[in-house]
Amino acid sequence: MIGVYDSGFGGLSVLRALRARLPTADFVYLGDSGRAPYGGRSPETILDFAEQAIERLFDEGCTVIVVACNTVSCVALRHLQQRYTPESDGRLRILGVTIPAAELVVASGARSVGVLATARTVASGTYIAEIHKLDPNIRVVQRAAPLLAPIVEEGWEGTTIAREAVDRYIADLQECDAILLGCTHYPLLTDIIAAAAPAARILDPSATVAERLQDWFRRHPRFDTGNTGQLRVLCSGDPTAFAAHGPRFLGGPLPVVEPIAELHGRLVPAVQVAHAAGQIVRTSHRMGR
Amino acid sequence: MIGVYDSGFGGLSVLRALRARLPTADFVYLGDSGRAPYGGRSPETILDFAEQAIERLFDEGCTVIVVACNTVSCVALRHLQQRYTPESDGRLRILGVTIPAAELVVASGARSVGVLATARTVASGTYIAEIHKLDPNIRVVQRAAPLLAPIVEEGWEGTTIAREAVDRYIADLQECDAILLGCTHYPLLTDIIAAAAPAARILDPSATVAERLQDWFRRHPRFDTGNTGQLRVLCSGDPTAFAAHGPRFLGGPLPVVEPIAELHGRLVPAVQVAHAAGQIVRTSHRMGR
Repeated sequence: MIGVYDSGFGGLSVLRALRARLPTADFVYLGDSGRAPYGGRSPETILDFAEQAIERLFDEGCTVIVVACNTVSCVALRHLQQRYTPESDGRLRILGVTIPAAELVVASGARSVGVLATARTVASGTYIAEIHKLDPNIRVVQRAAPLLAPIVEEGWEGTTIAREAVDRYIADLQECDAILLGCTHYPLLTDIIAAAAPAARILDPSATVAERLQDWFRRHPRFDTGNTGQLRVLCSGDPTAFAAHGPRFLGGPLPVVEPIAELHGRLVPAVQVAHAAGQIVRTSHRMGR
Repeated sequence: MIGVYDSGFGGLSVLRALRARLPTADFVYLGDSGRAPYGGRSPETILDFAEQAIERLFDEGCTVIVVACNTVSCVALRHLQQRYTPESDGRLRILGVTIPAAELVVASGARSVGVLATARTVASGTYIAEIHKLDPNIRVVQRAAPLLAPIVEEGWEGTTIAREAVDRYIADLQECDAILLGCTHYPLLTDIIAAAAPAARILDPSATVAERLQDWFRRHPRFDTGNTGQLRVLCSGDPTAFAAHGPRFLGGPLPVVEPIAELHGRLVPAVQVAHAAGQIVRTSHRMGR
C-alpha cells in the first residue's frame, strides 16, 4: 500500500498522476488540511507535522510513502528518511518530489528556470541545490508566491484575482525559459501561468514523480503496491471542505473522507468531533507541558 | 506593563489605538507571525498557541494582557481567563476584543451588521452571541474572508487583487447597515471595503478597545500600566519581515524586533537562529513524544 502525504488537498494532483501510472495500486492519502498552509511555517514545526503524518501512514499499513508536498520535501525529507527508513531497514521507504522535479527541469532543456513556490520552499534553497547537482549551468530564479495556494484553496483560480496575483509573481520570472510549478496547488493555475509567461515552458512535476515511482517499484519488486486500486483519504481539517475541493485536484470523485486529529503529538483517527462553537474551555494540559 | 498578543502584525493596529489612549503606558507586543495565520486552524491548536503566548507575556512581567487577535478572542478567551486569571487571582488579567466590538456595533445604531472575519472566528459564532447579548434584534450576517489577511501580509492592500477579493466577500453583506472589521488586518483595507459597501458604516473596533481599556485601568488602579511609554516587540517569525510590515499597522517605526521561538511547548527568547537552508535533520524528539 502506498501512502501519499500532503499539507492539504493540493497533493491530490500528484495522486491523480500516480493512479494514472499505477491503476491497480492501493493508496492512502493523508491531507493535513487542518494545519495547512505549511509554506509560511518554521522548519521545526514542519518537521513535527511531517513526523506525525508519516507515522500515521505507516500505522495504516503503508510501506512506501510519497511526500507530495514540496515544502516538506524541500525541508524535511532527509530527516524523515534518516529517522524512519535508515539504510539498514529494507521494509519501508519515503520518497519526495524534488529530485523528479529537478530531473524534469534538466530534461526540458531549459537554460534558465523560474521556481514558483512557497516561502519556506524558497528559503530552503533545495530546488537550486537539486537542479545544480544535475546541471550547474542552469540558471535558477526562485519566487515565493504565498497567495497562490490560498487563492486555489478558495476556489478562485478562474478569477481576476488569480490572474493579477500570477502576473505579479511571474513578473520576476519573465526571462526564464521554463517555470517549475513548485507547489501541488499550482497545476490548477497552469493556464493563467502559461498566459502570463507565454515564452516559458510550464513544468508540472506530477507526471515525472509518477513515472519515477513506477520505475522504482519495478526495481524494488518486494515492495507491494497492493492490487485492488483502493483509495482511502484521511484529513485533519474539515472533511466537508476537503470533499468539496478535492475532486478538482483528483480529477474525479473522492471516497468518504476519514477525519484524523492531533492528540498528544500524534495524528490519530478521530471520531468526528462536532465543530465546537463559541468559547472553548479545556482542562487538560497541552502537548509538551 | 501591558501585554498585547496577536497572531501576527495585524494587532499592531490595536496597539496603535492603545498607545494613543495610554501614551505613557509600557507595552510588550507579541506577534506569533511564525505560526500565522490562525484563522484556518483548529480550536485545539489555537488554545495551545494562545497558552504559550500568554505565558511568555506574563513571564515578561505583564500584568494585563489584551488579546488583540479576533480569532483567539472568539475561541480561547474564556479558557485563558479561567486558566490564568481565576476570580481568586487579583494580580493578573486577560482582556479580549469581542465585547468592545459588540458594544461598538450596538452604539452604531445599525439594525443589521455584516461581520467580516476569519473562518475560525465565523465558525465560533462568538460575535453573533456577543452582539445578541446586548441587542437580540440586530441582524448579524457573517462572512469568512480567508484571503484578506494574506493579501495584507503580502502588502497588496492597494491592488486590484485586494479590491476584487473585497468585492466578492462584501457581495454577501450588501444589505447590512454596518460592517464590522473582525480581524486586525482589515483596518488597512478600510477604504476599499467602504468603496465596496458605500451604504454601510465601517466599524473598526480598535478605538473602542482602547477606550474600554483606559476605562478599565481607571476602575482598577492597582494594575500598573508602567509610565515610560516603552514598547518592546517580540516575534516568532522572521524579524526582518516583521520590521518591514509592522510600521504600516503601527503607524510609526518599530523598536528592534526580539525573536522568540517555540521550544518544547513554550515560546522562549531565541538567540536569532540563522534561517537554515536546505534539508533540516534533527535528532531530538518532538513535543509531546
